[in-house]
Amino acid sequence: MMRTVILAIGREILRGRIQDSNAWTLARRLTGLGCEVIRIVTCDDNLTAIVREHRRALEDHAALVISSGGLGPTDDDMTLQALAEATGHPLALDEEARRLVASRYAALHRAGAVEDAGMTAAREKMARIPEHARPLPNPVGAAPGVWLEAGETAFVALPGVPTEMVAILEASVLPALASRAQGAVYVERQITTEARDESEVAAVLRRIARDLPEVFLKSHPTHFGPDVRLQVFVSTWAPDPTVAEDRLTQALLQIREALGEAPQGAKEARRPGS
Amino acid sequence: MMRTVILAIGREILRGRIQDSNAWTLARRLTGLGCEVIRIVTCDDNLTAIVREHRRALEDHAALVISSGGLGPTDDDMTLQALAEATGHPLALDEEARRLVASRYAALHRAGAVEDAGMTAAREKMARIPEHARPLPNPVGAAPGVWLEAGETAFVALPGVPTEMVAILEASVLPALASRAQGAVYVERQITTEARDESEVAAVLRRIARDLPEVFLKSHPTHFGPDVRLQVFVSTWAPDPTVAEDRLTQALLQIREALGEAPQGAKEARRPGS
Repeated sequence: MMRTVILAIGREILRGRIQDSNAWTLARRLTGLGCEVIRIVTCDDNLTAIVREHRRALEDHAALVISSGGLGPTDDDMTLQALAEATGHPLALDEEARRLVASRYAALHRAGAVEDAGMTAAREKMARIPEHARPLPNPVGAAPGVWLEAGETAFVALPGVPTEMVAILEASVLPALASRAQGAVYVERQITTEARDESEVAAVLRRIARDLPEVFLKSHPTHFGPDVRLQVFVSTWAPDPTVAEDRLTQALLQIREALGEAPQGAKEARRPGS
Repeated sequence: MMRTVILAIGREILRGRIQDSNAWTLARRLTGLGCEVIRIVTCDDNLTAIVREHRRALEDHAALVISSGGLGPTDDDMTLQALAEATGHPLALDEEARRLVASRYAALHRAGAVEDAGMTAAREKMARIPEHARPLPNPVGAAPGVWLEAGETAFVALPGVPTEMVAILEASVLPALASRAQGAVYVERQITTEARDESEVAAVLRRIARDLPEVFLKSHPTHFGPDVRLQVFVSTWAPDPTVAEDRLTQALLQIREALGEAPQGAKEARRPGS
């Protein structure tokens, strides 16, 4: 498992103006690859705050710190400056990044999306990346992503615009991580039990958890009602899928014996949005 | 402004199984009340992790730490234990909390939603709250919310089920915070400019920001295109709404002069979900 911290950078999230979706996308995609997401943090467009969150990720021994937001041309975009301060890799104009930015603006100019095609100070800012970092092409917008190896940790900075974030994630980040994250798979299963109330299943889940310490059990209530049946989720990290499935099969068997399994079509207690 | 940290506790969010909505709801509602949300953190169902995040909120001089999740009867619910450790207020059975839990189960039993009405160890767990804390009635589910004053900080722990979280927030938390958070209002306005590209507005925004240091300016790109117009958001904290409106009016005037304002109906660059 690659210990992973996700940072969503943007004051608009803290003010509740938008619901962040980038962290959710990243959590889902990275978990599927064998990364263990240990924290997700939303932080302000503020240099001190972004530096602090990168340092806290290092305190938590993260092997991967992946951020979205703060890569653009304006002064409120300061992720790369923060990354430079947190890692001691100062910003420098990167030739490859400059070429990527220039060619994007040339294309945007041809498409009539920007007034002029040339490089300006604001555009060049997006090509000033931490030393020894490499830029990741942005097929959708202007700001390249950035990949920096520092010590034991890989730092990946992606833009905040969701379409740009996803495009770079898929083209450059997931393929590069796939080989590293090998050696662990995360598998999860769920069962809808006959139980109706979490307080009635606590002792049973405790017993099964003691018996199968590598399986994480979690019951998910949403509401109470005579026909509501409680779902239990079981999950595990394992060296390979067979081991994972074996463990979960055992857990599900014990849950079924102790709590019963609701027939198909029983009203499942689901959270909105899940 | 009341410096506020929001904690969303739940492994299902870190694994990307669900998109958290509680933090978003809290950010929106608390900002509207004059709280300054400085960080939002999602953390694991793990005692050490939850204690650490409470401590980090104190490092950040939070006046309010509000959490969702981890209040239920099962062993993976450990928010109150963590709060006890982080504040040095040990857990103790609270008579008022016990009464609230018992009366909820009695009502749920009458409604046919739970098998038996009596208090069990698992149910009593929800009434073991940090010393000097007070329970907040849960009109929807079983676990009461918890309000604890420790040092300079108010800690508020709410359940993770969104309907329960919102019910306690509205009935007990917002009214209590409304009087404390007085003295600061947050106001935000937006303008759709004639500009099409962030890199073209960076210098203008920098000049206005220097001129009006109490106004935060942020441009929001979503994509490029010949008919896309860039939105700029201006916001400020002020002692009262009149001062806030004055500042934002000045900022909008300067933006309009420098970048123009797009006519109604121009294609606005909005983020999905905003």
